[in-house]
Amino acid sequence: MTPSPTEASERAAGPPPALGIGMVGYAFMGAAHSQGWRTAGHVFDLPLRPVLAAVCGRDETSVRAAAAKHGWAAAETDWRRLIARDDVQVVDICTPGDSHAEIAIAALEAGKHVLCEKPLANSVAEAEEMVRAAEAGRARGQLSMVGFNYRRVPAVSYARKLIEDGRIGTLRHVRVTYLQDWLADPLAPLTWRLKRERAGSGALGDLGAHIVDLAQFLTGEPLAGVSALAETFVRERPVLGGPSAGLTGAAGSAYGPVTVDDAAVFTGRLASGALATFEATRMASGRKNALTLEINGERGSLSFDLERLNELSFHDHAEPAASAGFRRILVTEPEHPYLEAWWPPGHGLGYEHTFVHQARDLVTAIATGTDPAPSFADGLQVQRVLAAVEESAAKNAVYTPVPPPSETPA
Amino acid sequence: MTPSPTEASERAAGPPPALGIGMVGYAFMGAAHSQGWRTAGHVFDLPLRPVLAAVCGRDETSVRAAAAKHGWAAAETDWRRLIARDDVQVVDICTPGDSHAEIAIAALEAGKHVLCEKPLANSVAEAEEMVRAAEAGRARGQLSMVGFNYRRVPAVSYARKLIEDGRIGTLRHVRVTYLQDWLADPLAPLTWRLKRERAGSGALGDLGAHIVDLAQFLTGEPLAGVSALAETFVRERPVLGGPSAGLTGAAGSAYGPVTVDDAAVFTGRLASGALATFEATRMASGRKNALTLEINGERGSLSFDLERLNELSFHDHAEPAASAGFRRILVTEPEHPYLEAWWPPGHGLGYEHTFVHQARDLVTAIATGTDPAPSFADGLQVQRVLAAVEESAAKNAVYTPVPPPSETPA
Amino acid sequence: MTPSPTEASERAAGPPPALGIGMVGYAFMGAAHSQGWRTAGHVFDLPLRPVLAAVCGRDETSVRAAAAKHGWAAAETDWRRLIARDDVQVVDICTPGDSHAEIAIAALEAGKHVLCEKPLANSVAEAEEMVRAAEAGRARGQLSMVGFNYRRVPAVSYARKLIEDGRIGTLRHVRVTYLQDWLADPLAPLTWRLKRERAGSGALGDLGAHIVDLAQFLTGEPLAGVSALAETFVRERPVLGGPSAGLTGAAGSAYGPVTVDDAAVFTGRLASGALATFEATRMASGRKNALTLEINGERGSLSFDLERLNELSFHDHAEPAASAGFRRILVTEPEHPYLEAWWPPGHGLGYEHTFVHQARDLVTAIATGTDPAPSFADGLQVQRVLAAVEESAAKNAVYTPVPPPSETPA
Amino acid sequence: MTPSPTEASERAAGPPPALGIGMVGYAFMGAAHSQGWRTAGHVFDLPLRPVLAAVCGRDETSVRAAAAKHGWAAAETDWRRLIARDDVQVVDICTPGDSHAEIAIAALEAGKHVLCEKPLANSVAEAEEMVRAAEAGRARGQLSMVGFNYRRVPAVSYARKLIEDGRIGTLRHVRVTYLQDWLADPLAPLTWRLKRERAGSGALGDLGAHIVDLAQFLTGEPLAGVSALAETFVRERPVLGGPSAGLTGAAGSAYGPVTVDDAAVFTGRLASGALATFEATRMASGRKNALTLEINGERGSLSFDLERLNELSFHDHAEPAASAGFRRILVTEPEHPYLEAWWPPGHGLGYEHTFVHQARDLVTAIATGTDPAPSFADGLQVQRVLAAVEESAAKNAVYTPVPPPSETPA
Repeated sequence: MTPSPTEASERAAGPPPALGIGMVGYAFMGAAHSQGWRTAGHVFDLPLRPVLAAVCGRDETSVRAAAAKHGWAAAETDWRRLIARDDVQVVDICTPGDSHAEIAIAALEAGKHVLCEKPLANSVAEAEEMVRAAEAGRARGQLSMVGFNYRRVPAVSYARKLIEDGRIGTLRHVRVTYLQDWLADPLAPLTWRLKRERAGSGALGDLGAHIVDLAQFLTGEPLAGVSALAETFVRERPVLGGPSAGLTGAAGSAYGPVTVDDAAVFTGRLASGALATFEATRMASGRKNALTLEINGERGSLSFDLERLNELSFHDHAEPAASAGFRRILVTEPEHPYLEAWWPPGHGLGYEHTFVHQARDLVTAIATGTDPAPSFADGLQVQRVLAAVEESAAKNAVYTPVPPPSETPA
Repeated sequence: MTPSPTEASERAAGPPPALGIGMVGYAFMGAAHSQGWRTAGHVFDLPLRPVLAAVCGRDETSVRAAAAKHGWAAAETDWRRLIARDDVQVVDICTPGDSHAEIAIAALEAGKHVLCEKPLANSVAEAEEMVRAAEAGRARGQLSMVGFNYRRVPAVSYARKLIEDGRIGTLRHVRVTYLQDWLADPLAPLTWRLKRERAGSGALGDLGAHIVDLAQFLTGEPLAGVSALAETFVRERPVLGGPSAGLTGAAGSAYGPVTVDDAAVFTGRLASGALATFEATRMASGRKNALTLEINGERGSLSFDLERLNELSFHDHAEPAASAGFRRILVTEPEHPYLEAWWPPGHGLGYEHTFVHQARDLVTAIATGTDPAPSFADGLQVQRVLAAVEESAAKNAVYTPVPPPSETPA
Repeated sequence: MTPSPTEASERAAGPPPALGIGMVGYAFMGAAHSQGWRTAGHVFDLPLRPVLAAVCGRDETSVRAAAAKHGWAAAETDWRRLIARDDVQVVDICTPGDSHAEIAIAALEAGKHVLCEKPLANSVAEAEEMVRAAEAGRARGQLSMVGFNYRRVPAVSYARKLIEDGRIGTLRHVRVTYLQDWLADPLAPLTWRLKRERAGSGALGDLGAHIVDLAQFLTGEPLAGVSALAETFVRERPVLGGPSAGLTGAAGSAYGPVTVDDAAVFTGRLASGALATFEATRMASGRKNALTLEINGERGSLSFDLERLNELSFHDHAEPAASAGFRRILVTEPEHPYLEAWWPPGHGLGYEHTFVHQARDLVTAIATGTDPAPSFADGLQVQRVLAAVEESAAKNAVYTPVPPPSETPA
Repeated sequence: MTPSPTEASERAAGPPPALGIGMVGYAFMGAAHSQGWRTAGHVFDLPLRPVLAAVCGRDETSVRAAAAKHGWAAAETDWRRLIARDDVQVVDICTPGDSHAEIAIAALEAGKHVLCEKPLANSVAEAEEMVRAAEAGRARGQLSMVGFNYRRVPAVSYARKLIEDGRIGTLRHVRVTYLQDWLADPLAPLTWRLKRERAGSGALGDLGAHIVDLAQFLTGEPLAGVSALAETFVRERPVLGGPSAGLTGAAGSAYGPVTVDDAAVFTGRLASGALATFEATRMASGRKNALTLEINGERGSLSFDLERLNELSFHDHAEPAASAGFRRILVTEPEHPYLEAWWPPGHGLGYEHTFVHQARDLVTAIATGTDPAPSFADGLQVQRVLAAVEESAAKNAVYTPVPPPSETPA
């Protein structure tokens, strides 16, 4: 873990130049991103040094407290002022989806690099605008990236490598789920996440976006079409903090309507003709964060479960049948993606390491002028799939084609 | 394991009366059924003693050899003669699906009880005829049963009991797969199972029938409608034993068309509105017999994998969150279904025990005059679901309702 | 599953000659052996046809009932008469260990082949006598075998093959447990199994015998010495059926002393210097039949759990580190030991299949005149290890050498 | 994740007071501790704010580079100067074991709080001296803690709570392993870790110390005595960087002797009479960081594997047998230890989080003047067990008592 003499002497020449980060939003995602920005430069040898310049939120007291807690040097209450700061080169957007487009486009127009949380936007139209802004920015040397952090679980990155290396062969099946259970209880309260006007959609946008992105990322193929069913199992939930709050037994007065889906299931075809199944739900009792995926090909298969994120299962179908089987690879070897900088084999990583890796990769891309992935165009493609899923679900499972990614927005 | 004095004295009065079995077909299923008939009376205390009276096949030499090997007292080459035998009270049909209807109806008309392998038939029309014949037979005191043997895996039977006991609560999700891989290799030969005229369908009928039955059996709910995609990934395969056999590299001459599906994926709604996903495939490299199922309800969840058939996973959502989790129940306790007669806890059972249990349950039903399950009507209901799946797949995933089971065939 | 034409024509020439089996004892082991004898000839193509000639027990009524239930043609109440029967060529001893030596030696002297349940005897001296008798019998063409049935779990047989093939390399570690929990409850009754005079020892002889045999069988190396601790955690247990039965709360009157071990833990060195750890207990709450074993070598590792008996875990240390990992081999392929005659891949076997395999192997050995394994000498070697364990435990863990197997009894 | 209004207003009153940390050593453990100190205050609401004041190492260039990389404000090359710094209130010792005693005692005499990596020392005598120094410091208000970080894996902390709550009941068995494989290759080089004069011992001190501490911590019972075997399987290994480096095939010239154990296996009795087994090895091919533990009691059992550190398996033996089984608890609920400050359920933590938790707990203890655990006395107790293990191994497994913890050093 100690630097080699060469590294040390280079370092003696001085620390790497600073790269100022400005973050909008400081709730769950903001906390995770903060940990990523704070840590990346202490673990990886980065060409630029991320500096937590300023964080932005609407309530001054709260945002100051958040800045203190998460290690940001300054606090802003207007995201336009944050974007305008000279010490901010990267704008990191951690707000709900309905504000992504406006902030991202403004930041790009202001000459900043942008990292935007997923889903890229709440509509295809917004996402298309964002892609156009990102392309214009790219022409000026600015980079854009969307925060599908699960691509950066080392086991997922390594799965992609195995597929690129041909270890799976001709693709046959993709099956992906993202199962949570925090809405299994019908008395769980009616938060803004259950309101269409704020959240855009329910399990579909929140969880489905991740699994659609992973399916396309891992296979290297876009979805060609989908057929979907969606359901809101619990249509009314107790309102929190309203005048009748607590009177949950009273005749309807304390309840409000849930206007997003609790769950969505969908099937699809990938560009090559492989079949795929998807399920996103917040009602799967006992499943906490079960993003599971399995990919079957002519030469092999892969499976993964985010609840055991340091493991990848790989079956090599070229092995003799008698000694073949799914092997549990602990993805903690120095040869594995991102692992060169962490701990010895078997000393696992956790959820927030994906944000450290995301920070590393964006910083490196900025320093080297290369395009980071996933791009806004990747985010748009996910949005198009989700829109097709919603359309199919509205039409009771009619097969709905997804425009191919080559069709860039006009 | 020793009989109590009372049992012994009862036995001293003589063995239980004989129940003659006549089996049609003696390939894979015939071997499994033979093991069931040979064993049931030695493990369970049955009110009637199954006698392996006669087995039937078309080739005399082969059927005689099969009779000797599997322990049948006589061999027949014409199933009509088998049905006509006085020493046969139960006709057990283990032939391919295209002959089920004819044999079963003839056996019922001849006054015999009938056990018919799944799928009940190759078409809904045939299955409806069989249900009518079974109802007519029932009026004469004859029983009929369809061989969905996986209901009799103790872990599956126990899962049904937990659901009946309300341990799952309001149903939300069913997800079921049946994954095999014996067609993953594109050079696997073109057997009769890959020809529509003989097999009816591919993975859908063979594997899908099992998972549709299990989903309906476990939840106690019929499927209300489905949306399906099906695919034949490898459309031509080497012909076995033809004039050009072996010349698999030659220009097409040794290949023939595959006319059934390699895989089918479908979603559906159960009667209560719960969502379900299904996948049946023979192309999932590394999965040998992965009939997996998971059921999520408001109060709990269950999961099962046929590759670990002695285990059932159960999550009790009423437990405090801190100590809750999926528990691995080894379904080998004397309190578990069928286990009172087998081995001590932890001494697992295997695949063919389901046929021993099937034999036990049919013999007991015959002795007591009660209706065995699954009935031919249950088999018909599965057939209707499979027909809806095929129709939906032919129309590229259009949501296709399934007639409710109450609509008995006219 | 159907015989080839050649087989059929051979069969047409008549069934294979009969081999008469006589079994002493008909409790748990007797039921399992009966299933093995009844089934082996119907699954495997055997050169001799096992005939269940007679079973023996002391109580006439009970043994007659057992004969009827398990399919034996006759019942005897004196094992000497069973041995003397002309229709008995193989004597199968399923009694408690204290009668093994007398019956086995008499059977051998009477010219019979012998299968003796494990442990071979309750003392080294008895076991040595039995080996001498077996050797004398061998000179007359009689075979002897001891019933360590777990060697015939296909996954265990295949593990042995991988080790013989050099896939593990130089041996470093063996760790084996056999954990059950039927004595975890301190109110579990005081049966004869908890009395030294009948049972010989407790968990050590019952469970420890299996794991010592497996460790030596799999590695191909004898244990060179051991160091052991043993414990009786619950020293008094309720007496069943005594005058005070049921008064378990009364002042001691209903309790009696447990005179065998509840658990034993021991370490050891194999002949090559590899280290081994062993644990046998009936007090491991939640573990039902957890015979687990792991073997580590320079080139690879193996692990196994009897509660998942169709699986073997294998790590190939010669694989590149990034893609290496324990693979879960479903030991259900036709290439695996014993599997050529059973079901398709993924259709698992159960506990009693080991007795079918044992029957197959002994019948084949008798027909071909080859030596079956495990031999009585193998059983003696296990006995010597157990004696060394007991001696070490009595001396509070003093390292106690085990005489090498080459030292045949004088 | 956002602070409540109350917290925010408190914070508005200013950040918590600083607590200066000075760390000695900056290799693997130093990197992990740095991450802990940097992160704890940003995740937890701490009463004092850890400040990374200075890090110390012998080589000036390297230590400066390490300070820059890991975020320390200053670098020192003499640990006495580090201790003397006014801005250092806590001395964190991350050096090899042979320097622990000298540094810790000097730091305590200088009035500092001390955190010392495990093992506490390389000998019982040193550890006793350290305990005396810690007690003297305690009288002056200084705190001492030893870095058995695995106690702070949430699953382990929660296991302790379940045991304290009586969910396991009377203890019967403890079985613990710590298996790694980085020495499985006989050509792995001869580093200082394989030299007794530097490392003290091999797998025993490095890995065994952790599992002895965990066994005692979890059960709340000290080990009463042990019986051990140890082995150095590969007695010579290639010397790195010597004059003949690279000539590994040459006649011995490039090899040097390994003077520590490769592996140690031991059994023991806990104070209550429960039996325990231990294994520590660096030669278990395929096991990377397999610290596994299982605890069986009359009322329940627990099992854990550090390779899946977010999971705890718990069997409740008070459940009805039919529905009982080991449940997999994802220890990621807000009710679980340390989890109130991290991510939503199912979003797992990693290895280095244990160091964040360690920092949190020591900072909190300092702020509140309470005694942190594990204490130096706990570290001494582990040392005494390890010494007994070494003594037993030297005498070929003779049972060796461990002095009870009440015997504080004179």
